[in-house]
Amino acid sequence: MRYALGVEYDGSEYKGWQQLGDSGGPSVQASLQQALSSVADAPIQVTCAGRTDAGVHGQCQVVHFDTDAVRDPRGWTLGTTTRLPRSIAVRWCVPVAGDFHARFSARARRYRYRLLNRPVRPALNRQTLSWERRPLDAALMHAAGQALLGEHDFSAFRSIQCEARHARRELQAIQVTRQDEVVEVCVQANAFLHHMVRNIVGSLILVGCGDKPVSWMAQLLAGRDRTVAGPTAPPQGLVFVGPLYPDNWQLPAEVTL
Amino acid sequence: MRYALGVEYDGSEYKGWQQLGDSGGPSVQASLQQALSSVADAPIQVTCAGRTDAGVHGQCQVVHFDTDAVRDPRGWTLGTTTRLPRSIAVRWCVPVAGDFHARFSARARRYRYRLLNRPVRPALNRQTLSWERRPLDAALMHAAGQALLGEHDFSAFRSIQCEARHARRELQAIQVTRQDEVVEVCVQANAFLHHMVRNIVGSLILVGCGDKPVSWMAQLLAGRDRTVAGPTAPPQGLVFVGPLYPDNWQLPAEVTL
Repeated sequence: MRYALGVEYDGSEYKGWQQLGDSGGPSVQASLQQALSSVADAPIQVTCAGRTDAGVHGQCQVVHFDTDAVRDPRGWTLGTTTRLPRSIAVRWCVPVAGDFHARFSARARRYRYRLLNRPVRPALNRQTLSWERRPLDAALMHAAGQALLGEHDFSAFRSIQCEARHARRELQAIQVTRQDEVVEVCVQANAFLHHMVRNIVGSLILVGCGDKPVSWMAQLLAGRDRTVAGPTAPPQGLVFVGPLYPDNWQLPAEVTL
Repeated sequence: MRYALGVEYDGSEYKGWQQLGDSGGPSVQASLQQALSSVADAPIQVTCAGRTDAGVHGQCQVVHFDTDAVRDPRGWTLGTTTRLPRSIAVRWCVPVAGDFHARFSARARRYRYRLLNRPVRPALNRQTLSWERRPLDAALMHAAGQALLGEHDFSAFRSIQCEARHARRELQAIQVTRQDEVVEVCVQANAFLHHMVRNIVGSLILVGCGDKPVSWMAQLLAGRDRTVAGPTAPPQGLVFVGPLYPDNWQLPAEVTL
């Protein structure tokens, strides 16, 4: 039997979704597999929609797993959450067809980046906010971001550690808004390269504070040169909102196109 | 010279604003006084607009203090914040008249309570959300809350530890709204009794989940009997948004009526 789970996590304490190599450190995936295996009373491996880096959060990461253990969806959800650290919770569980795949069935992914824009660092909600002390013009950032819409080679915003075979991705939406002291960047693409959102945000910050003109984003994209783009924005402001699937999979509304 | 400070804090790690008696434990006030004294190179005592309980947060607590040390407002703000734990930050500092008093000059206070309303506990942002698993009808809670508007004896929502001389307070606004899974209660009053917001929220939850009718809030208020009201809602969902002062004090817009 195959199940899909929606998983929420605070990535602050983790070395990322996946434990990479022998470098050690706790991972969200390892904690989740341990809790699911305890509920199933048998080893369970999960496959996720999109791996997140150290310090990055998940609002509705989706995973699938196969098991012979018979539990109802409520049992998987509540039983697993009880066995998880307080920084991870299972939001829902649904049985899915055997050919559903958390990663390959996803048609799009959404991320949200939030930064506190004021002279003084955040204290309240500092776990999920990054910080920029220079005043940012969110309207300029929004205008600059629109140059990235569509299918392009995103090499300019790709980390050198990125293992993807090519850098072509389709950016489907990008919005930059301000509410009081918080500037929020929301992006949706068919898929993302390693560090792509944080590199886009790092470059948009240079536009927002007036260091670079709005037209710079289009130049960066066309130049495909990571070394001239802005610095990688820090991880704590980033949340993987979640993947989106075609409605034939009958998943909860929050992850259905 | 007298200064006013706007202070933001995550109350999770503190025994409350004020260290009470010999019971020990860290307090926000003690941390702030230590940092200010270090900047001033002389002992500084602060007086706050409203003390908060253990685990309750501050978005813009206001304090005043007197000092002979000469520092510009920027120096007080940034120098003090640098010396504070990451859970506390000074948002701003302004020189004020010698008869300004953080507590007695305030005409109103605002609080916000947020709870996650879904079957599973929060993981992301769990530091500032409480949790209610029973489905809540925010519109019913809002309707019930309106019975509290105006000047009343709020004994029904007053903790037995409350040291106020009387229980008459003027509730100036109360709004209950829902955004997705989060129910938010915003209240403004001239002043609050000990545990008043958390006791109001605890009673509104009983209305929201259908245990009590909308009319119950008016009955509770009229009965003045704490023992029949709902349980005290947990502290982590509560934020002291801040006090409000008449505009003659020339404080920042966020704390001016």
